[in-house]
Amino acid sequence: MQTKIILPEDKLPKQWYNIIPDLPGPLAPVISPRTGEPVTPEELLAIFPPAILEQEMSSQRWIDIPEQVRDIYTMWRPSPMFRAHRLEKALGTPAKIYYKYEGVSPAGSHKPNSAIPQAFYNKQAGIKRLATETGAGQWGSSLSLACSLFGLECTVYMVKVSYFQKPYRKSMMQMWGATVYPSPSEMTEAGRAALAENPDSNGSLGLAISEAVEDAATHGDTNYALGSVLNHVCMHQTVIGLEAIEQMKMVGDYPDVVIACCGGGSNFAGLAFPFLADKSAGKQVRCLAVEPASCPTLTKGVYDFDYGDTAKLGPIAKMYTLGHDFMPPGIHAGGLRYHGESPLVSQLYNAGLIEARAVMQTGCFEGAILFAKTEGIVPAPESSHAVRAAIDEALLAKEEGKEKTILFNLSGHGFMDMTAYDNYLAGNLEDYEYPAEMVQESLKHLPKVKL
Amino acid sequence: MQTKIILPEDKLPKQWYNIIPDLPGPLAPVISPRTGEPVTPEELLAIFPPAILEQEMSSQRWIDIPEQVRDIYTMWRPSPMFRAHRLEKALGTPAKIYYKYEGVSPAGSHKPNSAIPQAFYNKQAGIKRLATETGAGQWGSSLSLACSLFGLECTVYMVKVSYFQKPYRKSMMQMWGATVYPSPSEMTEAGRAALAENPDSNGSLGLAISEAVEDAATHGDTNYALGSVLNHVCMHQTVIGLEAIEQMKMVGDYPDVVIACCGGGSNFAGLAFPFLADKSAGKQVRCLAVEPASCPTLTKGVYDFDYGDTAKLGPIAKMYTLGHDFMPPGIHAGGLRYHGESPLVSQLYNAGLIEARAVMQTGCFEGAILFAKTEGIVPAPESSHAVRAAIDEALLAKEEGKEKTILFNLSGHGFMDMTAYDNYLAGNLEDYEYPAEMVQESLKHLPKVKL
Repeated sequence: MQTKIILPEDKLPKQWYNIIPDLPGPLAPVISPRTGEPVTPEELLAIFPPAILEQEMSSQRWIDIPEQVRDIYTMWRPSPMFRAHRLEKALGTPAKIYYKYEGVSPAGSHKPNSAIPQAFYNKQAGIKRLATETGAGQWGSSLSLACSLFGLECTVYMVKVSYFQKPYRKSMMQMWGATVYPSPSEMTEAGRAALAENPDSNGSLGLAISEAVEDAATHGDTNYALGSVLNHVCMHQTVIGLEAIEQMKMVGDYPDVVIACCGGGSNFAGLAFPFLADKSAGKQVRCLAVEPASCPTLTKGVYDFDYGDTAKLGPIAKMYTLGHDFMPPGIHAGGLRYHGESPLVSQLYNAGLIEARAVMQTGCFEGAILFAKTEGIVPAPESSHAVRAAIDEALLAKEEGKEKTILFNLSGHGFMDMTAYDNYLAGNLEDYEYPAEMVQESLKHLPKVKL
Repeated sequence: MQTKIILPEDKLPKQWYNIIPDLPGPLAPVISPRTGEPVTPEELLAIFPPAILEQEMSSQRWIDIPEQVRDIYTMWRPSPMFRAHRLEKALGTPAKIYYKYEGVSPAGSHKPNSAIPQAFYNKQAGIKRLATETGAGQWGSSLSLACSLFGLECTVYMVKVSYFQKPYRKSMMQMWGATVYPSPSEMTEAGRAALAENPDSNGSLGLAISEAVEDAATHGDTNYALGSVLNHVCMHQTVIGLEAIEQMKMVGDYPDVVIACCGGGSNFAGLAFPFLADKSAGKQVRCLAVEPASCPTLTKGVYDFDYGDTAKLGPIAKMYTLGHDFMPPGIHAGGLRYHGESPLVSQLYNAGLIEARAVMQTGCFEGAILFAKTEGIVPAPESSHAVRAAIDEALLAKEEGKEKTILFNLSGHGFMDMTAYDNYLAGNLEDYEYPAEMVQESLKHLPKVKL
């Protein structure tokens, strides 16, 4: 009974898949908050290196992965795929459940897939320091690792609620040499303004982005790196899905549905985009993005132009949004607390090419513990959203007496999130559905964009 | 440039290697603390299942790994080996450094290699619950996982200093369904006696063993499981070295020295024993056991009969010991705080067939951080002892201008030990060499054994 599906190192993808040329229509332009006009390359070059900017705009379907990046990828890639025999048995389902496991990266999640090339291209461009934000700490630790490997300095603005909920993540970044500030911080105008308004602010990913962008924009030797949302980040993550397709071939199977949790969208994109493009199996796979009911961007947001950050410093993009001043509660899946969504994922969802579902956090932890007790691995709270949805799909298959092949991305491990499990086991976690009327209130503040 | 050396799943060892028939002389008998005579099988059957007892005494060189155990091993085995190109470069050493990585197991260390078969044989014997102790929490979490997979209950007595230093480890055990008590606890006579003497006791592995053994001995449906020291535990761990030999063959190399940290000895035994027995390369490898200067069992202890536990409930064995009432300081490598040592490792050390070295904890953390910055992986504090010694061997090779092939076991990751890294980075960790005169004091209390 084969459990692990291991792709040989020489099958590590040589190119990333860029979905832009395969979209159902042109991408809406990104708008400058300063001019209200489409953003110019010059504005973006203040915070991004040329190679990243080129990737962000590229209409080339396949983009070469530099050798130096592939070399570091091999530290943990190709990542393993597992058949969840024990979970299937515990559920009594006729469905086959596979999962791709990204928790084997040194930082413990899929995030280094983009942190490594971003650090590489910035180093190449002569940049000395990268500034970034982090929610759960997965991205911040991944960029800290990447900067350490390429000899760059790293400054991380960590959403305050996560800074205190996940002290180990902070320590990990510091161990890799990064400087970490709880956001809102006193280091930036955006942070000071937020603190003046509410000294006890929990922070948000949108606000932390404002701080990091401001830091990069105001320091010549410093660039900004974003861990999700943007096109190039989604593209870097496609190594996940590209490997998964090969691994599925190795066992002669193919998924009916692929499932990933969805915050900014890069993790979902990484698994789903290559499957959306794959015609080899002669069938179309369902792609399901899973988000928290407390931050229901796709399922309760609107598809419109909005700021990517709270302080309105970053570009305006057309995406699903809950409003840039949406302030999510301090749920444990800190990586899924973003008000917006990747424009790529948004366009696909709007076109009906992918599905979305919002789930409650206690159901996610319940699923994660069943998973840990059967498959051994402790899922990250973010990944537990995909676990929950995979279990629900498997239970539905059981109810309907149907065979089905499910593949989900276990995007990270939860070794550093045990406080959340503690709270769940102690019965201290509450479910929370973000009220529609509060979303409506936030949506009143969308920027006016005329094209 | 190949980084990962991946052994195919069909090369997972089918047998464990038992070193007993290859020892330089007969093993000293194990003595009953009750009778002062060699312990009888009946006494041991009160706490161990027959299959484990048979393995403990076996003079068979190769012992079959049950299919059900191999099946679970494949969740993470064969474990990867890495060539540490980046660390070598950072050190500027002519030495080649390889490491076997056991942190890929669901519990994050090598410990499940023995927890899985122990749970299997106990389940097979109709046992309902296992009681055990844990230092750093690595063994306790591994047994919790194993019990969860085989449907057994699990009670863990966790050394109090680790219970508070490593709360995430405790949560992990609870997540897998175990009941965890800080030791000394109120649950046992041994615990109550220790608390009466010193209510603020930090606990020790020896004392926690007393509690677990008492729990098992006083409950008919409960057995005891030990995570190190005993012959069968060392044997279960030999999958590490057996795989490593195959992986070395895959790259056409062979180590001059193999290095592992050494607490109770099973991790060291797991890597080193198969290499001691291996004649395929036509050369004898040096085997180096690394221990903390604060608990220097091999380098400062005596080779004599001593109790395995503080309360003198468990058997008396001939081993290197610091004395059963040795109370180590609360250093961060909780898994290396045991006063005794595997009798197998002890005999080999006494016969001059292996080497030992004691290292200071700040040097270990310094090495671990260099390792994390170059190789990515965050080492467990215990494993950092092997990292330190490997770095020192590589620096010596540089000094001497000699080529050398070094293999060490990175026995676990440090994701759950970030508090220790925090303390190190903040300059709060102190080095401590256990004073020879205090060892001498403890050694006055060795049991009198006449054979």
